Amino acid sequence: MNDRQSTTSQPDDTDEDVTAAVLVIGDEILSGRTREANAGYIAGILTAAGIRLQEIRVVADDQDDIVNALNALRSRYSYVFTTGGIGPTHDDITAQAVAKAFGRSIDVDQRALDLMLPYYQTRGVELTPSRLRMTRIPDGADLIQNRVTAAPGFRIDNVFVMAGVPSIMQVMLDQVLPDLKTGRRLLSETIKVSAPEGDVADLFTEHQNAFPAVTMGSYPDFTGGVIRCELVLRSIDAETLSRAAAALRQKLSEIGIRHV
Amino acid sequence: MNDRQSTTSQPDDTDEDVTAAVLVIGDEILSGRTREANAGYIAGILTAAGIRLQEIRVVADDQDDIVNALNALRSRYSYVFTTGGIGPTHDDITAQAVAKAFGRSIDVDQRALDLMLPYYQTRGVELTPSRLRMTRIPDGADLIQNRVTAAPGFRIDNVFVMAGVPSIMQVMLDQVLPDLKTGRRLLSETIKVSAPEGDVADLFTEHQNAFPAVTMGSYPDFTGGVIRCELVLRSIDAETLSRAAAALRQKLSEIGIRHV
Repeated sequence: MNDRQSTTSQPDDTDEDVTAAVLVIGDEILSGRTREANAGYIAGILTAAGIRLQEIRVVADDQDDIVNALNALRSRYSYVFTTGGIGPTHDDITAQAVAKAFGRSIDVDQRALDLMLPYYQTRGVELTPSRLRMTRIPDGADLIQNRVTAAPGFRIDNVFVMAGVPSIMQVMLDQVLPDLKTGRRLLSETIKVSAPEGDVADLFTEHQNAFPAVTMGSYPDFTGGVIRCELVLRSIDAETLSRAAAALRQKLSEIGIRHV
Repeated sequence: MNDRQSTTSQPDDTDEDVTAAVLVIGDEILSGRTREANAGYIAGILTAAGIRLQEIRVVADDQDDIVNALNALRSRYSYVFTTGGIGPTHDDITAQAVAKAFGRSIDVDQRALDLMLPYYQTRGVELTPSRLRMTRIPDGADLIQNRVTAAPGFRIDNVFVMAGVPSIMQVMLDQVLPDLKTGRRLLSETIKVSAPEGDVADLFTEHQNAFPAVTMGSYPDFTGGVIRCELVLRSIDAETLSRAAAALRQKLSEIGIRHV
């Protein structure tokens, strides 16, 4: 049984670029059966925390696919967050695959057992062999507690292994956030334009060239059958962002394009 | 200008395993600003068509990220479907990146111009330099028409480049589907169980072992604050699937677990 001390690093706010990837594991997403609901949530939380999400991958419940994706992502980004595949059934193979990716052994973990036993005993639920699978944690991992159903996730190095059920994933993410180092928060300003993208694209490109330190994106908006767009400006520097947004509003007004 | 003849292969129904990946391109998804809405839709359509979606990736509006992901995916799967980044603004770099991934040149395409000019002329809209960017198509690609806003997508080899706006992506996908070779359709049967996964997991694992040709997955269901689960059986063979599902229902009944 694993019974290691925590090796989690302390939080460390920094000016460095802190990056992340999300790895979603589950056949049910790829078949279209289940709508993926976690990656967008994690994206919003990480962005707000100053961590730049650079990639999302969804792979099947297949050990090689999980190992290959995880090894590619964990070497490339500061953090990797996985969701899915840590339940009690035979198709839940994430913990095993993560252990393999790290070359670690995996076994029933006393700490996980200590968390789960009282939960089941209180409810008069039997700890079947299948449920016992959820106590299998790779050697050297730190547990991520789960206040909803007791079965924990875990952290190993820069990889956070979380549940696929959104309500459980969210309490796990809440719990690990204070441990993450965070970069400077990316600020954004959105200008809603009452015109199609094509009407403002030339001006917008010029504006991007005039403010290279501000990242600018344009997103079409087809709601209500009217073609409009939103121009989004992003920067880690509030003053530069504010100047760039004000100048863009001014230019839009000058050519008579309504915006809010 | 590109003006090549179509090189699209004919549809070809087959027993072989036809696989696919979806590559979603866009900073707005990774920042959490926009909820990704295309991959799940494509997943459902491909599954129904007998094409096995094996991977989804989301990358930023960054040329290297797009090129690397596209080259990894197009060599691994029968088809790759990209969404996003083919609009008129400077952050729309997908066509350029796809050309680079294939080592092809890219220029204004006469066929794309022929599609877009009448659309703009009818509406009295100016074909600005930014809008003209949407006629830039890699050499040797086939166009995918867009009945919504005229600006086309394109196919090059096994890669289909589509818009990010869901309504436009969907008409593009409708249009390319008849050209795809399809495998045997994966059939599925879902059993809704009025018990948590852990109560049936041992039985379910035994059942998976008894029917190795049927892929079985269990998905927890926490709706309404009650912990239940759904057991999903999948097979390309209707008769085997039916037998496996009937036997599982029988086993659940024998141990007194309600299911529908």
